[in-house]
Amino acid sequence: MKKTPNVAILGATGAVGVEVLKTLERRNFPVRELTLLASGRSEGKTMEFRGRKLTVKAVTPSSFAGVDLAIFSAGATRSREFAPHAVKAGAIVVDNSSAFRMDPAVPLVVPEVNGADLLRHQGIVANPNCTAAILCVPLWPLHRAAKIRRIVVSTYQSASGAGAKAMAELESQTRDVLDGKPAKKEVFPHQIAFNVFSHNTKVAENGFNEEENKVIEETRKMFHEPELAICVTCIRVPVLRAHSESVVIETERELTPDEAREILSRAPGVKVVDDSARNYFPMPIEAGGIGEVLVGRLRKDPSSLRGLAMFVAGDQLLKGAALNAVQIAEMLLQR
Amino acid sequence: MKKTPNVAILGATGAVGVEVLKTLERRNFPVRELTLLASGRSEGKTMEFRGRKLTVKAVTPSSFAGVDLAIFSAGATRSREFAPHAVKAGAIVVDNSSAFRMDPAVPLVVPEVNGADLLRHQGIVANPNCTAAILCVPLWPLHRAAKIRRIVVSTYQSASGAGAKAMAELESQTRDVLDGKPAKKEVFPHQIAFNVFSHNTKVAENGFNEEENKVIEETRKMFHEPELAICVTCIRVPVLRAHSESVVIETERELTPDEAREILSRAPGVKVVDDSARNYFPMPIEAGGIGEVLVGRLRKDPSSLRGLAMFVAGDQLLKGAALNAVQIAEMLLQR
Repeated sequence: MKKTPNVAILGATGAVGVEVLKTLERRNFPVRELTLLASGRSEGKTMEFRGRKLTVKAVTPSSFAGVDLAIFSAGATRSREFAPHAVKAGAIVVDNSSAFRMDPAVPLVVPEVNGADLLRHQGIVANPNCTAAILCVPLWPLHRAAKIRRIVVSTYQSASGAGAKAMAELESQTRDVLDGKPAKKEVFPHQIAFNVFSHNTKVAENGFNEEENKVIEETRKMFHEPELAICVTCIRVPVLRAHSESVVIETERELTPDEAREILSRAPGVKVVDDSARNYFPMPIEAGGIGEVLVGRLRKDPSSLRGLAMFVAGDQLLKGAALNAVQIAEMLLQR
Repeated sequence: MKKTPNVAILGATGAVGVEVLKTLERRNFPVRELTLLASGRSEGKTMEFRGRKLTVKAVTPSSFAGVDLAIFSAGATRSREFAPHAVKAGAIVVDNSSAFRMDPAVPLVVPEVNGADLLRHQGIVANPNCTAAILCVPLWPLHRAAKIRRIVVSTYQSASGAGAKAMAELESQTRDVLDGKPAKKEVFPHQIAFNVFSHNTKVAENGFNEEENKVIEETRKMFHEPELAICVTCIRVPVLRAHSESVVIETERELTPDEAREILSRAPGVKVVDDSARNYFPMPIEAGGIGEVLVGRLRKDPSSLRGLAMFVAGDQLLKGAALNAVQIAEMLLQR
């Protein structure tokens, strides 16, 4: 890729798109020309990048002429429709949707985990599901050290995972409930204010919902462990933008909490927050807005032979989406 | 016990005490005279029971003269102080606090699980920790059917577990955060509005906090399984009054989801809410105010040989406290 590429963002006005723009700016990503693309509804909106006002254009098949790098975050349907046009125009697509993640020809990458997989891309690189990405960052160094045999994870997922409208719904519903009014449901099928519910994706034949199956399949793909044993329960909680995860692993070699803490304190993309004396551990309000995945509550799981329990929190919009996409783009630039 | 006992409630004005009063009324529990007791701070407050206004008295060692049944929900310190006086006065104490739960001489009872243990009481019966009670109701019939070997549970605990003030703090903090003001922390050590955090109890030597160790030890005691393997992570979520739990079990005999669903549909105190087609599963807003523990998301855990995953929600103030205490009292009346 050119050292200073022409960049396009598809879905620029969405919750993730906004964060992609901010992340490119914050990380001084070299950009020659930036094209902001979205559906017709957002055409004509303006957004700021490095002090310049840019106008959002409606995406068409010919939007990608001259584009070197296209970051897609407009959902799987749009990705399937427009990625082939972008690739044909010569762009590399970093896709935030689920459209291509399990395609064997498409690398699915968290740079800290399997950056080397980028080398074999054929025009499209997939950005993983947010819950999978946040899970993999702290688990990968533990897997390298002691080989993880089994993962049991229960999530505490924020509204941001369902987009900007879902975040607004959490706020407006909360106001309504506090005022004694009924909670208006538009984005989520169930009340999100002062409630938790099983993730709002279709439940598959195996009893797991789509979100859970993504976590299982994508973690296996990134770890290059097609048989890795994973049980996951995805739950929405009334939090705005960071996901938390309660994780129990079993390893082939025993890993003490101290050893795990030591490994994690050196691991890229991870911040250990594990202060039992002060009862201070990872929390979504502190994970929001930062790039690192917080990990703590590291303790021996007494219920299995070589078990380790922990609690994790990571920004769904950053490491779970925009930041990881920009990190992928940075690796593409270097190679 | 007399067929129509004199009843005292200690901690009558607290979140649980209020529910004990309502539950006695709702379930037509026979009461000759009701004495409402609390700390000096609540002295003189009035509360209604069966259309009569009752005045709350400050508890003293002599408050229990003539009392046949005393339901305590004023914390472990007060239980340790006043239970001996109540027992000496001839009352049976049903204690909601942790003070006597692990005392080998004190039965710890969820009627649906180990009601028979009541027979050996010596004046005090302990009501379990709310999270343990809610967990045990659906797991006990599965344990009886297939012998549970291991439990991995992550909780989504409501503010009510920390009392009425904590519920008020969740509401006031939420208003403040929505208005862009800082969240005032008085009850909880961390912001509860739009956040989740590790349960605010002291972390013990084994890395588990007090709440988690209660779940482990009390479940073992009620199940009469002193070695039962349990890993638990207790997390607070911004929900007002019902606890939810993501549970994965391993059983000695294989239990299919269908068989588990069938067993649970006949189990006392349980309501199966498990409609994958409608994406409708247990939620705390629906578990609040009802006596049954909701259970659903029943599915095979593919990560272990004989694993089963599920999601549970139960009213922390009812089955987790007041209702269970009144059910214990009802069993005492019958015996």
